[in-house]
Amino acid sequence: MIHSKIPLAQTVTELCKKHGIQHVIISPGSRNAPLTISFTHDPFFTCYSIVDERAAAFFALGMAQKLQTPTALVCTSGSALLNYYPAIAEAYFSRIPLVVLSADRPDHLVGIGDGQTINQPYVFKNHIRYSAVLKLDVNRDKTMKVKALQTAGDFIETDSEHAENLQGEVQAFNEKAINKAINTAYKTSGPVHINIPFDEPLYDTVETLSVSPLKTDLEPSSLGIDSNEIEHFISDWNSASKKMILVGVNPPNSVEQKWLDFLAQDPSVIVLTETTSNLHHESFFTCIDQLITPLSEEERKDIRPNILLTFGGLIVSKRIKALLRKHQPDQHWHVDLLQANDTFFCLNRHIKSTPNLFFETLLTQVEPHLESPYFPKWQSKNQLRIERHDAYVDNIPYCDFLVFHHVLESLPNKINLHVANSSAIRYLQLFQLNKTIEVFCNRGTSGIDGSTSTAIGYAVQSENQTVFITGDLSFFYDSNALWNKYIPKNFRIILLNNNGGGIFRILPGEKNTPNFDTYFETTHELTAAHLCKMFGFTYRKAHSEDTLQQELKDFFEDQDQPQLLEVFTPRTLNDSILLHYFEFLK
Amino acid sequence: MIHSKIPLAQTVTELCKKHGIQHVIISPGSRNAPLTISFTHDPFFTCYSIVDERAAAFFALGMAQKLQTPTALVCTSGSALLNYYPAIAEAYFSRIPLVVLSADRPDHLVGIGDGQTINQPYVFKNHIRYSAVLKLDVNRDKTMKVKALQTAGDFIETDSEHAENLQGEVQAFNEKAINKAINTAYKTSGPVHINIPFDEPLYDTVETLSVSPLKTDLEPSSLGIDSNEIEHFISDWNSASKKMILVGVNPPNSVEQKWLDFLAQDPSVIVLTETTSNLHHESFFTCIDQLITPLSEEERKDIRPNILLTFGGLIVSKRIKALLRKHQPDQHWHVDLLQANDTFFCLNRHIKSTPNLFFETLLTQVEPHLESPYFPKWQSKNQLRIERHDAYVDNIPYCDFLVFHHVLESLPNKINLHVANSSAIRYLQLFQLNKTIEVFCNRGTSGIDGSTSTAIGYAVQSENQTVFITGDLSFFYDSNALWNKYIPKNFRIILLNNNGGGIFRILPGEKNTPNFDTYFETTHELTAAHLCKMFGFTYRKAHSEDTLQQELKDFFEDQDQPQLLEVFTPRTLNDSILLHYFEFLK
Repeated sequence: MIHSKIPLAQTVTELCKKHGIQHVIISPGSRNAPLTISFTHDPFFTCYSIVDERAAAFFALGMAQKLQTPTALVCTSGSALLNYYPAIAEAYFSRIPLVVLSADRPDHLVGIGDGQTINQPYVFKNHIRYSAVLKLDVNRDKTMKVKALQTAGDFIETDSEHAENLQGEVQAFNEKAINKAINTAYKTSGPVHINIPFDEPLYDTVETLSVSPLKTDLEPSSLGIDSNEIEHFISDWNSASKKMILVGVNPPNSVEQKWLDFLAQDPSVIVLTETTSNLHHESFFTCIDQLITPLSEEERKDIRPNILLTFGGLIVSKRIKALLRKHQPDQHWHVDLLQANDTFFCLNRHIKSTPNLFFETLLTQVEPHLESPYFPKWQSKNQLRIERHDAYVDNIPYCDFLVFHHVLESLPNKINLHVANSSAIRYLQLFQLNKTIEVFCNRGTSGIDGSTSTAIGYAVQSENQTVFITGDLSFFYDSNALWNKYIPKNFRIILLNNNGGGIFRILPGEKNTPNFDTYFETTHELTAAHLCKMFGFTYRKAHSEDTLQQELKDFFEDQDQPQLLEVFTPRTLNDSILLHYFEFLK
Repeated sequence: MIHSKIPLAQTVTELCKKHGIQHVIISPGSRNAPLTISFTHDPFFTCYSIVDERAAAFFALGMAQKLQTPTALVCTSGSALLNYYPAIAEAYFSRIPLVVLSADRPDHLVGIGDGQTINQPYVFKNHIRYSAVLKLDVNRDKTMKVKALQTAGDFIETDSEHAENLQGEVQAFNEKAINKAINTAYKTSGPVHINIPFDEPLYDTVETLSVSPLKTDLEPSSLGIDSNEIEHFISDWNSASKKMILVGVNPPNSVEQKWLDFLAQDPSVIVLTETTSNLHHESFFTCIDQLITPLSEEERKDIRPNILLTFGGLIVSKRIKALLRKHQPDQHWHVDLLQANDTFFCLNRHIKSTPNLFFETLLTQVEPHLESPYFPKWQSKNQLRIERHDAYVDNIPYCDFLVFHHVLESLPNKINLHVANSSAIRYLQLFQLNKTIEVFCNRGTSGIDGSTSTAIGYAVQSENQTVFITGDLSFFYDSNALWNKYIPKNFRIILLNNNGGGIFRILPGEKNTPNFDTYFETTHELTAAHLCKMFGFTYRKAHSEDTLQQELKDFFEDQDQPQLLEVFTPRTLNDSILLHYFEFLK
């Protein structure tokens, strides 16, 4: 097997292999040639070539989201690395593991005016779980004296024993740093950055490894909850007459159904989920905004729980955040191994555990309040909302809202549904969704910058079909997502094109002025038809309820290439229908 | 006139106005609505709406490059800001002034799980000249208690006098920080970041300003050179029999022609320029690689100067860097107000001055070596190269090299020529260029990520026609550059499409394996035809020398929309013709 001749390249790739990082997304470059050579010649790795690093990083993120294990990104030196940043921040806040491997020049060639050279070490400092800055291998052949000498190798050309010793130190340092970085990616389920200096020659290869780096493991962290603490939890739980569970972004199948069933049969508990929580029970309230938006101030006080228990990632609904900030629970407990956001300014318990483990401890020892009116009351309210919702849908003209209704009705079972920010995910939260569908959205930063690439990365790793629903600004923003040779034929995009950022019509501020159209809604006349031709997607379109239903009929069926359905909706009607919806629910 | 009601938004926009920042590039968002409202309603500002922040920032960079004064970028909170980073790094190393204005949430709403919220302060730390982190205005109406209170305003709802005092302090702090940031952008000719927290409501407007911030000016810095130092310079210069001037990226018309003439008439001086140096004299050596690549080791020693004098930005030619690192001059002087790269590991003088001022001091006091053989010898060598170059061009088949020859021959006078990284700019350096043409390339980071956007930004501010020459990877990478409503009709793109990254064929390493094609050259079958239809460009194409010449005939003439000429070249032939060229020159 062919490897890069450079020991450091071998060390990085061997340790990735030993840690089980199998999928490697490579962007072209010369400085990273040693890594590219070593990764792509080793059949253990599945490699992907993506030119635009911004899209590459979101593609890697989507893969890691599916695999629940780190994927590796490889790029050359210079600004290439900076294009990863939007996806790295998303991974940081969404808790998705990524291992970023950036090639760099040796220290003494940084800051002297060479090309494709920036200040790479710690460049992601604000949004990274660990940054490893590796050291250059000691070069025993080097004869050129350089002034700004920062690497040991250049000093010792006449003394090979000294060189061996120095290289041994460098090797040990690098192995330790790489192990720490990869272990941190696993442990924190977040992004880490390994910066890797290579000197020329970059393209030399060997057939036998010159290093055999050792994998080190993490010390297992104890997940148990202190028994004194448990007593408090049990007693507080039992004495609370109103408990609310609120779940944000959460991977499918991560919580055992028996705990969900247990919570569902306790009338003193209400469970509020978002589509991105991927939790299902007929007694859960799945459309939070639908339920709470029409509430009177009195009702808002009434829904206020004694204990708010949260787990999972970020919450989409701004309205529930506003409600619980104003009507704060007595206690807020958050369950997460690593961190807890004080989203409602009343967090008093960060339970460093998994939901399953915490529920196993808590729910086996507490008493349900079988007489509590909390759940029944809100259940009947919720039922009314669902009826009003259905009545509304039956009476609205063709618009974004109605398109969502029909699209969601048409989705096949057991697909993965990826949804873009920002209007798209908000609409989705208003509908009851087929429970066999798994839902994902980049809510870490809630950016419009990489949703398509993320969906494609996910699709590549999934046996089930992946469907992506997006708005037009988000879709055109990430159009380079389609510059990708790995897109599965069964991948589907539904693009709601309302010629601009529909979200801005829903927000406060002046509307329908040239100023608003240009700087807020940013209207345009673009269509995806040309991109579909360019990148090998079958293009379909709809302009009305009839044509939409017609196009949806066979849209998800097997075809010989991926497909995109562009649904044009009336830009100036969508917002009023959404705003009237919340009035109508009352 | 309408302004945002928020004092901080007024303060930012008023200070931008007072500092003469006229051009503002806005990406859509809600958190930045106060800035958008204030900038877009004030006729002093010319505003531009660009959705993709990566393209927006390079667009702003191109404008600032032309204007030689800062442009402002405005974005919303969250990952939007991170998409600016590639252009910010380019601005940092290319010394182009940019003022980045990022809206943010108030401190107490950061890090608690709200949407579109990241860790914005100091996020560009590795590549920014100054980062200002502004403070939230004191809110006198606020009634909601929050726990994670970091802003003073929430404490003082009952005491309006105290509130006024606190707001006075905040206002003074913010004015000082904004002034410092903008002054730093001017002084360093680099990027600065101002992070601006806004609380809701974001869309309220007023007709009268509530603040009148004061502009502060920089203390003028003394540019004079110490008289003792001058003596040394004069004596060293006079005693050196070989002086080499080497100039990298340099704005047009920044050095007075009389100094260039003076240098040209001293036979002990040779001047090596790149096309990006925008300096012209018939005695200068303008094709460095053409001149030095065929040199024997003896000749390399012979061209070595006693004094190397450099000014301007980064050098494209890797070969001159390698030559001068191996055959180091006795002294290396670099002229720049701010910094000096030790590119050749022998920098001994950083002359903190402008080239004009330094030349005025030095050249008026030194003696030309009228008998020196240095210039005449290299002049005759250079003449031979030019003859060989012309002979080579006459005998090669259709390929990238020949396309460059014909394209450059066809360029009209007095255009701005923007060139993409990485093959394109290297080819350009091999040709004598019409001296009325001004040349630009993003050599700060030498990235392929934003050249099209930069060229368009430049074109918008220029009265002369702008022509952009690019390779295919660079063009498709930045395709969102074309999502821009401000592109002048006379803007022209010449796209050399050789179906992949041609640069990798010229570098070492294996070639023509599936592995090479996929991960290095990253071959594709894309064409720009679809993007042209999508974004309103006239599309033209050429596949041969004849069709190329045919298409070039009227390509630069007035048309009713911008035009792109896609020139398809033979992927597997280009590299051997380039490599043989250097052999042929000998």
